[in-house]
Amino acid sequence: MARKENNFEVRTDLAVEQRERFPGDGGEIAGVALREWRESGSAVKMSEVQILDEHGARAMGKPKGVYLTLEADGMAGNDEEEMEEIAREFAMQLRRLLLREQNEAQITPKELDGLKEFQGSKSEKAKNKENRTGFEGKRILVVGLGNAFVTPDALGPRTAGNLKVTRHLDGQFGKGFCQERNLPLLSAIVPGVMAQTGMESAEILRGIVRETKPELVIVIDALAARSVRRLGTTIQLTDTGIHPGSGVGNHRHGLTRESLGVPVFAVGVPTVVGATSIVHDTISSLEAWEIEEKPGWEEKLEPELRNLYVTPPDIDERIQRISRILCDGIHQALFEPETCL
Amino acid sequence: MARKENNFEVRTDLAVEQRERFPGDGGEIAGVALREWRESGSAVKMSEVQILDEHGARAMGKPKGVYLTLEADGMAGNDEEEMEEIAREFAMQLRRLLLREQNEAQITPKELDGLKEFQGSKSEKAKNKENRTGFEGKRILVVGLGNAFVTPDALGPRTAGNLKVTRHLDGQFGKGFCQERNLPLLSAIVPGVMAQTGMESAEILRGIVRETKPELVIVIDALAARSVRRLGTTIQLTDTGIHPGSGVGNHRHGLTRESLGVPVFAVGVPTVVGATSIVHDTISSLEAWEIEEKPGWEEKLEPELRNLYVTPPDIDERIQRISRILCDGIHQALFEPETCL
Amino acid sequence: MARKENNFEVRTDLAVEQRERFPGDGGEIAGVALREWRESGSAVKMSEVQILDEHGARAMGKPKGVYLTLEADGMAGNDEEEMEEIAREFAMQLRRLLLREQNEAQITPKELDGLKEFQGSKSEKAKNKENRTGFEGKRILVVGLGNAFVTPDALGPRTAGNLKVTRHLDGQFGKGFCQERNLPLLSAIVPGVMAQTGMESAEILRGIVRETKPELVIVIDALAARSVRRLGTTIQLTDTGIHPGSGVGNHRHGLTRESLGVPVFAVGVPTVVGATSIVHDTISSLEAWEIEEKPGWEEKLEPELRNLYVTPPDIDERIQRISRILCDGIHQALFEPETCL
Amino acid sequence: MARKENNFEVRTDLAVEQRERFPGDGGEIAGVALREWRESGSAVKMSEVQILDEHGARAMGKPKGVYLTLEADGMAGNDEEEMEEIAREFAMQLRRLLLREQNEAQITPKELDGLKEFQGSKSEKAKNKENRTGFEGKRILVVGLGNAFVTPDALGPRTAGNLKVTRHLDGQFGKGFCQERNLPLLSAIVPGVMAQTGMESAEILRGIVRETKPELVIVIDALAARSVRRLGTTIQLTDTGIHPGSGVGNHRHGLTRESLGVPVFAVGVPTVVGATSIVHDTISSLEAWEIEEKPGWEEKLEPELRNLYVTPPDIDERIQRISRILCDGIHQALFEPETCL
Repeated sequence: MARKENNFEVRTDLAVEQRERFPGDGGEIAGVALREWRESGSAVKMSEVQILDEHGARAMGKPKGVYLTLEADGMAGNDEEEMEEIAREFAMQLRRLLLREQNEAQITPKELDGLKEFQGSKSEKAKNKENRTGFEGKRILVVGLGNAFVTPDALGPRTAGNLKVTRHLDGQFGKGFCQERNLPLLSAIVPGVMAQTGMESAEILRGIVRETKPELVIVIDALAARSVRRLGTTIQLTDTGIHPGSGVGNHRHGLTRESLGVPVFAVGVPTVVGATSIVHDTISSLEAWEIEEKPGWEEKLEPELRNLYVTPPDIDERIQRISRILCDGIHQALFEPETCL
Repeated sequence: MARKENNFEVRTDLAVEQRERFPGDGGEIAGVALREWRESGSAVKMSEVQILDEHGARAMGKPKGVYLTLEADGMAGNDEEEMEEIAREFAMQLRRLLLREQNEAQITPKELDGLKEFQGSKSEKAKNKENRTGFEGKRILVVGLGNAFVTPDALGPRTAGNLKVTRHLDGQFGKGFCQERNLPLLSAIVPGVMAQTGMESAEILRGIVRETKPELVIVIDALAARSVRRLGTTIQLTDTGIHPGSGVGNHRHGLTRESLGVPVFAVGVPTVVGATSIVHDTISSLEAWEIEEKPGWEEKLEPELRNLYVTPPDIDERIQRISRILCDGIHQALFEPETCL
Repeated sequence: MARKENNFEVRTDLAVEQRERFPGDGGEIAGVALREWRESGSAVKMSEVQILDEHGARAMGKPKGVYLTLEADGMAGNDEEEMEEIAREFAMQLRRLLLREQNEAQITPKELDGLKEFQGSKSEKAKNKENRTGFEGKRILVVGLGNAFVTPDALGPRTAGNLKVTRHLDGQFGKGFCQERNLPLLSAIVPGVMAQTGMESAEILRGIVRETKPELVIVIDALAARSVRRLGTTIQLTDTGIHPGSGVGNHRHGLTRESLGVPVFAVGVPTVVGATSIVHDTISSLEAWEIEEKPGWEEKLEPELRNLYVTPPDIDERIQRISRILCDGIHQALFEPETCL
Repeated sequence: MARKENNFEVRTDLAVEQRERFPGDGGEIAGVALREWRESGSAVKMSEVQILDEHGARAMGKPKGVYLTLEADGMAGNDEEEMEEIAREFAMQLRRLLLREQNEAQITPKELDGLKEFQGSKSEKAKNKENRTGFEGKRILVVGLGNAFVTPDALGPRTAGNLKVTRHLDGQFGKGFCQERNLPLLSAIVPGVMAQTGMESAEILRGIVRETKPELVIVIDALAARSVRRLGTTIQLTDTGIHPGSGVGNHRHGLTRESLGVPVFAVGVPTVVGATSIVHDTISSLEAWEIEEKPGWEEKLEPELRNLYVTPPDIDERIQRISRILCDGIHQALFEPETCL
């Protein structure tokens, strides 16, 4: 008989998991659009949850916006080629999401025509135009949220810490240096967590944004998932920023267009699950469990289980691998669009 | 109604958890003796499981021998004083277990009398005798099992890596140097894991034992527990060594008196639990779950859950704290018996 | 015969070393005051260089202000008690320097009298007043400059990363929480280096200072010394902040009262020396070298030597020890004045 | 005028530097043969010092044997392609040195002819023979000497720790598994240093060699050089093993064919120089220093300088890069001869 899935209130930061809670996988939720696809031959399964209005936002418990999900079991593995494919796919989706937001910055078809006319000429500038990325000269700040000393929370710090930043090159070699080379003005910061800094990440970033004036912000964060299957195998991209209570470290204040004053995109990968999620997963996987669940069982759990988050023992290695995928993907999306178009 | 606990086959390396599986906590198992106590005012709860004969060994799935368990929630906390108390209690228990084995090395009552007579004299040697530890001049090898790069498996390497070894002092300052100072000849090794070395830990240690001839071996290892409550809050000491299939890294061969040719003691702390254990814990904690379990539900679990081991997100910090407790405790047991008698 | 010391232009961040360059140790430099002392029985040698006016600033190549130096060979050693003594002495000097700046915040003799009168009363508030630190409720930001991944440059990040911050407690438990407990509102940040962030530390800090409004800033940084003897054995405190070209990482922009808008204190420890300094040290130590140096030899050095900075092989361990001294000292200075008065 | 180079007794572990001490670079030393070359277009400069007899051994202060040196400034840089070229060249030289020793294991020209005849046949075994490496089924132990926690001494541990070992596969999948796949039986160990283990590396390795019976041992170690130019830019390979007093950690006992009972090869990279070496380098680079040196100046140096070894501040990054080159090179030499023949 049908299980009352919606009695579970297991925490998840993934829109796609939140969506799965509703009865009947194909079922409609007013104000929420779901789309799923897989490029032919690709190792990566894509889904897009769009929360279209306030009704959808209430139903999903998440703000209006686009939530893209890449799923690939290969992220947990060791295969170099598969990792490169995932990085490429991630780069492509990140690129699309960023450009969707700021399509005024995109190369228009007309511009493209103009570029083609240039192809006869041999000037350096003209050739550079052929390699336009859509982000040249754009001021972009990447934020690595989380605690660098708590491994499953270190995804943001490790990714942001390995980016090839460029913003300072304009300072060193003259204004325009990056733009002429089709580079964005990329900067990156690891703000630390409140227990280390005594400050909200939102405060630190508001100060840095005011001072260095990025045009868009990309936040990298480790997430909590409901399903153990998703640990380190799913990437979520969203244009809604980071909201209070999300992330492994449970941010107290949001990082959004409202709080920072510029568009904020978020890239997250689940690295922990709640112990209660494991119970949920288990029960869901049992055919023999032909009983009606008692509603509210979770409230009766011992507190140590209710608040227990867990992570796989090989998390060090996983975080290293995933941060490399994210780092490579961001580089491709912003620097080398030809590799991911 | 009664739950059929013994249908569960959740893996545990702890004798005390294995013992709990049997119906009726106070119930008797032939060939197994259980004793529990707490020193008055102490934060540490002690238990001793003794497996007395082959019948007990079969029932418990563990070899004959003594299994001492220290339980202290303070191990998960941050209180300096409580940590020192736990280290002291651990030192005392380790000391007793080692001396029980080799009581020929113990100071006999007669010797003690002799020592007291010496108290009048002022010679350095005589005073040293007053500070006899029972391990002076004894060759002791501590082995830190596990993978230093997988945090929950790094307990052994971190503990062994921080010990104050002394064996080389005899080589540097002359034979007898340690004994005259009431020091053991302490050596320590971190053999690595098979995937790093291509060798069994047992092979590496057999070679080192043959070459350096320790009189006793103490192995430190991270364990798997059944109960999440025990993660990082329990220390098990045993005189049976390490057996195949135990430990986070699942050792393929044992490290025992039989395989190494000298007495082998093991000190372990659980740092991972199986996902299935969490399900078990949860169900056990539910009063409302008044149903008879379906036997064999575990066999029906999806393989990814059945083999999933998990660890707390703050495992880095916990391992650091526990390795300090073990390190301090070993030092006290071997060097400063006055602090733990 | 006299050696022309002032031909050497070996870089140093230490005012006390710059002072030593002038012929005749007791010699006077207009606009520079030097004072040296040692508390009786103390392991720490103190000196204070005061640059009083523009003439002194030009002669010294450093801005006007106070430069306090603690020297203690024990910083390189392993003696726990000596380390505690150094931390205490450092705390006392830091405290004095901070309070000198803001003597309006100091407890006046009159206030002290008032406090004594209170001693009869038993109110909590009154007792708290007895424990006044001079920093209660004060907003203080500690900045850990340098690259956390280049060991000799990691002193700032490691020190700032281990501080017990308090500023967020007011946010969590209500405004006034810290002040009532005689705590400062302490925050800390590790801004990273420009090659990692694409931003000047000065930009990042200006943003954070504007947003979080500290009343004073303390910057921790690793320095370059001229003498190998000073590597890890000297602490410099100054009220002049950080100036361009200083520090292991050679900051491009200063962190000063002018650039940040609040008083900036700097705490530095030398962790590298230039290769040319080693040559200088060597030659200075040779009695047999009774020759007149050829002026300008340094310009003839091969570039790889001229720009080579070096550090001791055991730098990891040294940085760990020194960051602990600094961290303990800052805690004592700001939280526990009774331990360092 | 001529400088009396041979008065300097600056320590070096590099045979090629020891050779340079003798007056007249082209000059002959009885019992020592020198050969230098560079493959056309290669970034790597090669030299081979052969110590032929006892006279040469005395003159050089090093045992009889072959000392190959690769020099490439690219090792200090960041260029991926150059790093790959250096790894390839290192692999080729290592391969030659190992096969020279055990030419009975080499593929003879006759065998090669035989292999070509097989080319018509399609059997798996025959095809495997075409890919023979000369090391198939050979038992090889790689030893990473040094202290993993002292960065410039960590080269051995990091290299050995990242090797793809295979020896255990025969245990897991059946004897002959490796040989049939043209794989060596590769094992690796990081024995630690005496201050951590209380045992000599020689003792630990003698035990492991006796127990696991490798046919040859390759030891990786960090070295001391005389010239700062060589820090991290030179690889030395030798068939003489490791001798007392060499290496950053100054091994007390040798690791040689005599002490271990099997051929011992050593691969070393200089990561520290003595402070006195820097003085030497400087003076050598000064044209203006037209004076006769006073013999024996080093004896007059202050002890803190005489025993001071130094390392570059970015040593962490350098060690990471070099260990990757060594690791890749060893893999190519033993697993993929086609990439380095």
